[in-house]
Amino acid sequence: MNEPGKNELGNHQLQDNLLQNNELQDNQLRINASRLQHNIQSLAVFGLNTATGGLDRTTFTPAELAAREWLKAELLKLHLAVRVDAAANIWALRSGSAVPLPAIVFGSHIDTVPNGGKYDGALGVLLALEVMAVLEENKVVTRHPLELVSFSAEEPNPFGLSTFGSRAVSGKLKARDLTGVRNDQGGLLTEALRLAGGDPEQFGAARRRPEELAAFLEVHIEQGKRLLDRDIPVGIVTAITGIYREEITVMGEANHAGTTLMGDRKDALMGASEIMLAFEAVCRNHPADEVVGTIGRISNEPNAANIIPEKATFHLEIRGEQRSQIQEVLEDWGKLALSVAEHRGLRLERRLILDQNPEPMDSLVISLCAEQAEKLEYSSLRLGSMAGHDATHMASLTRAGMLFVPSLGGKSHCPEEESRIEDIEKAGNVLLRSILALDQELNR
Amino acid sequence: MNEPGKNELGNHQLQDNLLQNNELQDNQLRINASRLQHNIQSLAVFGLNTATGGLDRTTFTPAELAAREWLKAELLKLHLAVRVDAAANIWALRSGSAVPLPAIVFGSHIDTVPNGGKYDGALGVLLALEVMAVLEENKVVTRHPLELVSFSAEEPNPFGLSTFGSRAVSGKLKARDLTGVRNDQGGLLTEALRLAGGDPEQFGAARRRPEELAAFLEVHIEQGKRLLDRDIPVGIVTAITGIYREEITVMGEANHAGTTLMGDRKDALMGASEIMLAFEAVCRNHPADEVVGTIGRISNEPNAANIIPEKATFHLEIRGEQRSQIQEVLEDWGKLALSVAEHRGLRLERRLILDQNPEPMDSLVISLCAEQAEKLEYSSLRLGSMAGHDATHMASLTRAGMLFVPSLGGKSHCPEEESRIEDIEKAGNVLLRSILALDQELNR
Repeated sequence: MNEPGKNELGNHQLQDNLLQNNELQDNQLRINASRLQHNIQSLAVFGLNTATGGLDRTTFTPAELAAREWLKAELLKLHLAVRVDAAANIWALRSGSAVPLPAIVFGSHIDTVPNGGKYDGALGVLLALEVMAVLEENKVVTRHPLELVSFSAEEPNPFGLSTFGSRAVSGKLKARDLTGVRNDQGGLLTEALRLAGGDPEQFGAARRRPEELAAFLEVHIEQGKRLLDRDIPVGIVTAITGIYREEITVMGEANHAGTTLMGDRKDALMGASEIMLAFEAVCRNHPADEVVGTIGRISNEPNAANIIPEKATFHLEIRGEQRSQIQEVLEDWGKLALSVAEHRGLRLERRLILDQNPEPMDSLVISLCAEQAEKLEYSSLRLGSMAGHDATHMASLTRAGMLFVPSLGGKSHCPEEESRIEDIEKAGNVLLRSILALDQELNR
Repeated sequence: MNEPGKNELGNHQLQDNLLQNNELQDNQLRINASRLQHNIQSLAVFGLNTATGGLDRTTFTPAELAAREWLKAELLKLHLAVRVDAAANIWALRSGSAVPLPAIVFGSHIDTVPNGGKYDGALGVLLALEVMAVLEENKVVTRHPLELVSFSAEEPNPFGLSTFGSRAVSGKLKARDLTGVRNDQGGLLTEALRLAGGDPEQFGAARRRPEELAAFLEVHIEQGKRLLDRDIPVGIVTAITGIYREEITVMGEANHAGTTLMGDRKDALMGASEIMLAFEAVCRNHPADEVVGTIGRISNEPNAANIIPEKATFHLEIRGEQRSQIQEVLEDWGKLALSVAEHRGLRLERRLILDQNPEPMDSLVISLCAEQAEKLEYSSLRLGSMAGHDATHMASLTRAGMLFVPSLGGKSHCPEEESRIEDIEKAGNVLLRSILALDQELNR
């Protein structure tokens, strides 16, 4: 008689034995830093602006499409099953021994901001590629299937949709969100998506179900100076910042710049300046270092040298690891803003633009990563991510985690963006071993 | 024998007798308020925007060219010698009895800002027309020739040249300043000038020599609330404000809005806000009420919600009746600006745009106007003009003076711009009698 139950158990035991043998071998595994370095240089050719030294590899541009072809070719060399989904995300599957376990996914994105650097996003994809290469050359067998992912359009882009790929995968971006979206030149997003191998008609097919996924891991540059300042090579992300954005319009009265006495003015720009400085002060005074606020965008009307401004409009952004921190800033600032407006006889209009909750990373992933860093004798720091990442959206589907690599000078989104290969190597080794540790720990 | 010297003396005595007789009659002369009111309405047809109720009579537009034709026709009805000079200024000459005495000139401009009102400029031209009409119907003989002038393009206009006509007359604007100047639609200033009857090839011919002129008088709306607040119908201008403009560029460092801690930022926009507020405070605290400062124009780079501003540029304007007042503001503010920049690790660049000296009005003209107001039993106030006017430039050629009419609500450059006919009438009577008084007093 066929005893499937017993057979299954037998298979599990067999696998466990295999895996214990593997574990000893796995502890010796290291990524190949010189191959990785070579790949960083190879990918950095696509979109290189020789004038600035920066990369112009905005999503769906010819340079980015060429980079996609390079990546797919490298993945195929490793005998991975490569596919491009409806959102033009590139996936590369390495089968696991214990079908049908859900997949452990790792990766990031290869698009850049205009005049960006060669590490933001690319590093996460190239380290994922390197992990796949090490597993392949060492013939490592994992229980879970492993999938590398390179998400489409993570960065702000001319179509106005960032974290495009991961939002499609997590079901947050729908086919209807693409309808009629064009860039400044009038090009349709749907056409651009098709060029990259996506399928706007079947866009929903890009969505992954939570039961298909065991975990998601992303390595990224920190884009700040916390690791560098502390001389710590490995960052383990505890949460991805919430992002809150408002548009504030300050309304006063246009008037003649010569004939209106100082006391008779309702100057919208002066009011806005006072309100903006109040915002800066509230953010500076917040006890949590990682609470930051930015006013990056302003416009003024009628914006003529000899007319007192009637209307000043600015975008305010608050980031924090906890929802309550964002609320605290909003409340403190809101009171000050109102009092400035009242005092100056101005009117305020506030419009919500974005309210993205902070996303905690998975505690098991965090502790496994920290454990692997410790075993490798690398010092590590747990820290919040103050930038948004694809991992934010993946966290709504599965256990998600991120590793940070120190950024020299804290710089990113510029040609000077750089990380040291010795730091990158360490993050790569933690990634490799964390994937194997997750493979051991999960779904047992 | 012919004795020219004796003859001349004889002529003078004859004239003096005539004028003494006239003086008695002149004291009875009054402008005709209802005819003036009618003319205000007639001119306000040209450029009327029925949607807003404002006037769009920007210089050299079809509406402004039509208004010029209306004015010339009205001047010809009064048997005046009408001519258009090379700068398209309209002049109307009424001969004096004592040729070759220099001319007493009065007038203003008929162009408007976009969506402007029917009083700014137009009132000065229409009161000049009314004075000519009263003199004509009363057959008043003056010693000096009288000239009405309607200056071209006093207001800011699409060619970027304000007080165009009076700067041409005073020799401050040269033919070379017109070369290649175009509006936003690419239209050449020289072509537009030709349409209005000007002559760009002979532009220098518009210049008047000081010896041709005895005095210049301009009536204008106040564009502020000082007369209204004090319930005084007649303003006598003591000086026209100096205007000083600078472009200030604040340079910081663009950086990621999420990953850059508050303490690590060099935020150009926040620095600019603090520097702008310091400027406002210095202007507010200046002991002279009429010292005003405005920041009407600002731009920000890269102006994206999620990037810390790298560069904020604004235009600062200071107006004051005395050069020393402008200097005081500049010095006090300059120190504060530097200290803000230093404290925030920002760099400042300052570029001078305009440095127009305050222009005192002629003391004889001022006292004659005050005397006439007193004789008419109108209360009057001596005050500085905080707006620039054609009289600023005429003051470099001849004795110049200005009369102000109260502006309801202090408003100007908008459809709501308005002055009461009873106030306008009083200014008109002071103008009429001051011209006759100047005719008596000057060149004796």
